[in-house]
Amino acid sequence: MNGPNLNLLGEREPGIYGSESLETINSGLSNVAAGLGVELGFYQSNHEGELIDKLHAARLEYDAVVLNAGAYTHYSIAIRDAIAAIKLPVIEVHLSNIHARESFRENSVIAPVCVGQISGFGAYSYTLGLYAAVELVKRRG
Amino acid sequence: MNGPNLNLLGEREPGIYGSESLETINSGLSNVAAGLGVELGFYQSNHEGELIDKLHAARLEYDAVVLNAGAYTHYSIAIRDAIAAIKLPVIEVHLSNIHARESFRENSVIAPVCVGQISGFGAYSYTLGLYAAVELVKRRG
Amino acid sequence: MNGPNLNLLGEREPGIYGSESLETINSGLSNVAAGLGVELGFYQSNHEGELIDKLHAARLEYDAVVLNAGAYTHYSIAIRDAIAAIKLPVIEVHLSNIHARESFRENSVIAPVCVGQISGFGAYSYTLGLYAAVELVKRRG
Amino acid sequence: MNGPNLNLLGEREPGIYGSESLETINSGLSNVAAGLGVELGFYQSNHEGELIDKLHAARLEYDAVVLNAGAYTHYSIAIRDAIAAIKLPVIEVHLSNIHARESFRENSVIAPVCVGQISGFGAYSYTLGLYAAVELVKRRG
Amino acid sequence: MNGPNLNLLGEREPGIYGSESLETINSGLSNVAAGLGVELGFYQSNHEGELIDKLHAARLEYDAVVLNAGAYTHYSIAIRDAIAAIKLPVIEVHLSNIHARESFRENSVIAPVCVGQISGFGAYSYTLGLYAAVELVKRRG
Amino acid sequence: MNGPNLNLLGEREPGIYGSESLETINSGLSNVAAGLGVELGFYQSNHEGELIDKLHAARLEYDAVVLNAGAYTHYSIAIRDAIAAIKLPVIEVHLSNIHARESFRENSVIAPVCVGQISGFGAYSYTLGLYAAVELVKRRG
Amino acid sequence: MNGPNLNLLGEREPGIYGSESLETINSGLSNVAAGLGVELGFYQSNHEGELIDKLHAARLEYDAVVLNAGAYTHYSIAIRDAIAAIKLPVIEVHLSNIHARESFRENSVIAPVCVGQISGFGAYSYTLGLYAAVELVKRRG
Amino acid sequence: MNGPNLNLLGEREPGIYGSESLETINSGLSNVAAGLGVELGFYQSNHEGELIDKLHAARLEYDAVVLNAGAYTHYSIAIRDAIAAIKLPVIEVHLSNIHARESFRENSVIAPVCVGQISGFGAYSYTLGLYAAVELVKRRG
Amino acid sequence: MNGPNLNLLGEREPGIYGSESLETINSGLSNVAAGLGVELGFYQSNHEGELIDKLHAARLEYDAVVLNAGAYTHYSIAIRDAIAAIKLPVIEVHLSNIHARESFRENSVIAPVCVGQISGFGAYSYTLGLYAAVELVKRRG
Amino acid sequence: MNGPNLNLLGEREPGIYGSESLETINSGLSNVAAGLGVELGFYQSNHEGELIDKLHAARLEYDAVVLNAGAYTHYSIAIRDAIAAIKLPVIEVHLSNIHARESFRENSVIAPVCVGQISGFGAYSYTLGLYAAVELVKRRG
Amino acid sequence: MNGPNLNLLGEREPGIYGSESLETINSGLSNVAAGLGVELGFYQSNHEGELIDKLHAARLEYDAVVLNAGAYTHYSIAIRDAIAAIKLPVIEVHLSNIHARESFRENSVIAPVCVGQISGFGAYSYTLGLYAAVELVKRRG
Amino acid sequence: MNGPNLNLLGEREPGIYGSESLETINSGLSNVAAGLGVELGFYQSNHEGELIDKLHAARLEYDAVVLNAGAYTHYSIAIRDAIAAIKLPVIEVHLSNIHARESFRENSVIAPVCVGQISGFGAYSYTLGLYAAVELVKRRG
Repeated sequence: MNGPNLNLLGEREPGIYGSESLETINSGLSNVAAGLGVELGFYQSNHEGELIDKLHAARLEYDAVVLNAGAYTHYSIAIRDAIAAIKLPVIEVHLSNIHARESFRENSVIAPVCVGQISGFGAYSYTLGLYAAVELVKRRG
Repeated sequence: MNGPNLNLLGEREPGIYGSESLETINSGLSNVAAGLGVELGFYQSNHEGELIDKLHAARLEYDAVVLNAGAYTHYSIAIRDAIAAIKLPVIEVHLSNIHARESFRENSVIAPVCVGQISGFGAYSYTLGLYAAVELVKRRG
Repeated sequence: MNGPNLNLLGEREPGIYGSESLETINSGLSNVAAGLGVELGFYQSNHEGELIDKLHAARLEYDAVVLNAGAYTHYSIAIRDAIAAIKLPVIEVHLSNIHARESFRENSVIAPVCVGQISGFGAYSYTLGLYAAVELVKRRG
Repeated sequence: MNGPNLNLLGEREPGIYGSESLETINSGLSNVAAGLGVELGFYQSNHEGELIDKLHAARLEYDAVVLNAGAYTHYSIAIRDAIAAIKLPVIEVHLSNIHARESFRENSVIAPVCVGQISGFGAYSYTLGLYAAVELVKRRG
Repeated sequence: MNGPNLNLLGEREPGIYGSESLETINSGLSNVAAGLGVELGFYQSNHEGELIDKLHAARLEYDAVVLNAGAYTHYSIAIRDAIAAIKLPVIEVHLSNIHARESFRENSVIAPVCVGQISGFGAYSYTLGLYAAVELVKRRG
Repeated sequence: MNGPNLNLLGEREPGIYGSESLETINSGLSNVAAGLGVELGFYQSNHEGELIDKLHAARLEYDAVVLNAGAYTHYSIAIRDAIAAIKLPVIEVHLSNIHARESFRENSVIAPVCVGQISGFGAYSYTLGLYAAVELVKRRG
Repeated sequence: MNGPNLNLLGEREPGIYGSESLETINSGLSNVAAGLGVELGFYQSNHEGELIDKLHAARLEYDAVVLNAGAYTHYSIAIRDAIAAIKLPVIEVHLSNIHARESFRENSVIAPVCVGQISGFGAYSYTLGLYAAVELVKRRG
Repeated sequence: MNGPNLNLLGEREPGIYGSESLETINSGLSNVAAGLGVELGFYQSNHEGELIDKLHAARLEYDAVVLNAGAYTHYSIAIRDAIAAIKLPVIEVHLSNIHARESFRENSVIAPVCVGQISGFGAYSYTLGLYAAVELVKRRG
Repeated sequence: MNGPNLNLLGEREPGIYGSESLETINSGLSNVAAGLGVELGFYQSNHEGELIDKLHAARLEYDAVVLNAGAYTHYSIAIRDAIAAIKLPVIEVHLSNIHARESFRENSVIAPVCVGQISGFGAYSYTLGLYAAVELVKRRG
Repeated sequence: MNGPNLNLLGEREPGIYGSESLETINSGLSNVAAGLGVELGFYQSNHEGELIDKLHAARLEYDAVVLNAGAYTHYSIAIRDAIAAIKLPVIEVHLSNIHARESFRENSVIAPVCVGQISGFGAYSYTLGLYAAVELVKRRG
Repeated sequence: MNGPNLNLLGEREPGIYGSESLETINSGLSNVAAGLGVELGFYQSNHEGELIDKLHAARLEYDAVVLNAGAYTHYSIAIRDAIAAIKLPVIEVHLSNIHARESFRENSVIAPVCVGQISGFGAYSYTLGLYAAVELVKRRG
Repeated sequence: MNGPNLNLLGEREPGIYGSESLETINSGLSNVAAGLGVELGFYQSNHEGELIDKLHAARLEYDAVVLNAGAYTHYSIAIRDAIAAIKLPVIEVHLSNIHARESFRENSVIAPVCVGQISGFGAYSYTLGLYAAVELVKRRG
């Protein structure tokens, strides 16, 4: 699940976010998922409310969520509450190392209610997030 | 009027928010309203923009608003401005005691433009909010 | 139970605190209480220590306390500890909307140990506090 | 482009925001634009996500954006990222002098990624923003 | 009117507060008052509540108050509210220069509701406070 | 000497403060004092002003004070000034480890004018305080 | 009116402040002013006191002031008071976008007493300031 | 000695600073001084450097300085150092109650090196300052 | 590479850090590494200086470092400088979610000089760190 | 157990730390311990890592630790974690009153994981710490 | 180049600034300069604006500046901008150790645009500054 | 004496720290020392404890210490206490201008107990430190 401005990946500040489009990243993830024998759904929205609606819906459809909430990471207490409200494990991922940028990006209001955080590995952050999700679901049996 | 994640009431962290669903609460309020001889409308949305649109609309349709803005309470200056822009009395309510939780929940950016705040009485906070609204409208004649 | 300077109600800054005296408010509350079939006691003091003594005494005499601690709300950790020490539900009320005034009035050191907070409805805040107290005692059976 | 609550201009707190409606302002701007030989599009939304969508769309349709992001100015890092993601010059305008109001309005999270800021001239802020936009586009040739 | 620990003047940290006892200071003030043709009352208490009670009483008995609230200066919002509640001009005085000591003594919570502040002139601060009081009462006619 | 709410020891939040009453603690201390050949006086009050009065009186009657100022520890600059004004060594004790609780309890405004601080050993904190007092008096000859 | 170091424009950090000298900018402004049928006076000083003297003098000679106070913008409360003391509308302009630089440049102590702020458009900021000044004077009639 | 903008007294924000001009105030002070048998010199400048030069000069010509440093009070460490460098007693005065205005006016960087502070009594603050100066010089003999 | 107290894994606060010993974790990682065809070295020390020495040495022996600096994460600028000084990619891992614990654990002084951060997945954080290291080395060719 | 610079006791800033050497203090403690029938071990190091190693070792050899961590008290989260990792009761002692010195010494990062704190009694702080340790071990049986 | 109050050296707080006058220091520096075969110019002013004017002039006359900006060091962003505007290397010197005095003296707003800082060596700080200036000019060739 | 990571000089971030190795710098200093007729010892360690041990040892072997504590400058209160404990003059030096880098490097916890600070002159900072040390020893005779 992807938050605001991630639909522009590849075109948007490529020095920070890389030159791969979200479609390319997603199709790479589908390949990894296929190798692991798991099913993936993709979603992107620039709307905070839609991300909340989608998280609510996910609680009935998925076993785990890999979430890059984009800028909402830093102030959306509403998304934080949505994560806390559903019972799925949510894994927070970021393309860039949010701890090495502007100080307002260091703070993640959703981190305390996510299982863990992976940031700074570019598109490979999603792959690591997928591995982590699979591991978590496997452990919970 | 209810903000984000309140559609999951009853299922969402019941230790904090109680086990009644929003529908049950609303139908209880309808009963109280009937006893008081007043008409109620209900609205819930996870979208900040829709809550603003609805507040704008309310200025033409209602005499007062009882508002639980959920997580938006803590950062939505846009909702604050919407409350200040309409001329209705708005009463801020919260299920939990927001002053006894995480420190970021203590701050309400909408409080300074609401008439008053009622928090910590569970679903009964709405009933108190309804009483207050009726009293305020009565006084304003 | 009322804290410092509330004995001057009606005369004191009526633009903020209203023009009713504490006696008038109390007699109105007695009427409401009579309608609800409950007994009320009234107390006001400008002395922090006396308010603490009275809270201690209340634990043996009452089922709940509706407390307007006045200015002590903002710094009396001793009153906070008294509230935590007794086992009665304490309901915090304020005549004015403390969240819409000077910033030092926004913070209530007693809020985290009270059941909930009602502020901004003038003398009607006490009435709402009384309703809340009755509801809480009823629930605890 | 206009953010939340600006649809109520003229009716909303006229002491601060003036008594002209957004329609009147926009038609005045159209006249100025006609005099300058440039084309204008207008957009207003109370939804953060829609403003982001529209900024994304603007990158393919316009040469510059004059943006009054309303209350989102003060916390929407998502809109900030949208401005940084598109390559158009964005000019930040405000009707009121945001540096002479509540302290939370002094901070603009979008300012560092806009070309410049114009605030405090009422509806004339838009006219100045339009002049600035035309000048910037002219210089970039 | 004098607050806590001022009963020990002369004996208490004489390097800071001087070696004159409160009685000596008061009798010197009586002489000055006699010369000015005004009547003075003296009061000292270590109890915050008694100072509030006394301020309330003063509103019916005096034309102005010269107040050294001692340590309560720095945190007693209850005394601040008492000063605001009565309509007498209150003049804040301090023996030592509170702006040249520990940082917590720099802040006076009562200053914003007093007419003015005089600090740092030892016992002569009271004399200056008396002059100021007489001048203020004279002007108000 | 004991500050506010310590009269409820044993009954008050026993998980934090232990299940011994203040009387039991005091009688245990009397035994220890008897063994050491020293005389003890006991005092408890919920009133800040009375604690100040008592500290003033103690300067003429005792050689040292073991003080648990309870909640006043955290804001009573008036008590701080009383300790500085008398010349007795004052030893600050706390039942609970004030450095391991809410952040507002970490700060002791009286600590800088006390000889030292002992906190976290339950009722045994008083015993250690007594040992320290005896040692200090012995050294001062 | 221009503050400190603006006499070095063109030579001083041209990457930030542009390569036009203050003389070139001023003569461009004279042309614009001529087109608008208004008269302009120019002044630059590195001395805070002289800028204050000049603002005082301006109140008798001009209808409005376009002020780039340079570094004094960020700390000169004396200039702020001078602006508040005269009754002319003062328009604050900056060559660079002060909200996109070092954090100490974000704060303008003069902004709250100016009509509005224009920053980030290079030398064209002055032109916009001139338009705004003419508009303001026209409106005040 | 008077700092910036005080030359405009009477005309400048009379609601805050009164309607008397500096000349009127000074001539009133001359009368008081004559009554006390002391000689006064007057000085006003908007220039920080000139105030420093004058303070340096005063150390050879006067016995004490009554200083209203105006806005420099709040940030001129250079004036603070000048006061500390000369050995004259300096008395800080303010027309308005600086503790009851904007928060940046509460802080006086010169206060710690002045003998004391008098603020809030309008032009009478100077008279009190003069009394204090005479008293201080008399005591130092 | 592991920092202080990680030698006690399994025994130390197992509710937070899990019940596997460091040896078990390391031997699991060896298996994963064998599967990936890469060689691993292990190191643990409670000494800040030894970790720095070892990082210096690693720059000549390894292609990447997976580092759990334990408590040094939060204050060792010396380790931060060591990471910046060597040219190896360093991947920061944590067993627990450091963003969901005490506030002092949220801040990582080494994060800005590491490639990225993985936290909250228990011992599996190391496995993800190993995958990330292998990916990074592969990309750098 | 003693931290950095305590090996220089007696020679180091004797006005603050006293003139007894660590050896003298330790031999005095041995006498007290002999009187109480308990065995003591002594350790001092200037190395943070060695103190951690020693705390780890202590968990297998001792029943309690009396720890003066010296300057590490104020920033060594690694020592804090070591204390939390072992299950021994650790008693924090300080020679000087750390709450009456520079503000950075007021904060103890180890305090929240120690049983309690004793500070300000010079070498006698160790004696009190020993009494406390014996009492704690006795209670735990 | 010397800032405010340095003209009083020798007389001004000699415990902090030494008993040598500025003339004595300057003539000592002339001797050192003669030994090094370089030419020196001296300048002192209490006026911020004059120091700026002089820095501007120095860019055409000198190869480097040794600057003791006195109190302006701590707040004069205008002097900071002047240093950044000219291209000469500027070396910041202080007689006293500014890091060991009041906290407001620790911060130097000019330090980030100077080559380096030398403080705490009394008049010898100037000598070291001169050595550094000569070395820098030599390296730049 | 040199702290952590300085053993990598020349190789480590040469843009900041220069391209000379520590050996080269030290041998240059030996030449300068020879010219001045003084003896030098060199020491570098990455271990905080070893630096403390060495400072302790230095008090018996040297007349002064020139110390570049590297990153420990910013947080090692233990090294600060070691400097205060020995009676040698310690001169703090830095290769880079620590006031022009990340904000956490601006603060030196050791500065208040050193004689003075020299920063920003590259390897020449050591030479200046040596001059200062020789001067100080000479003055102390």
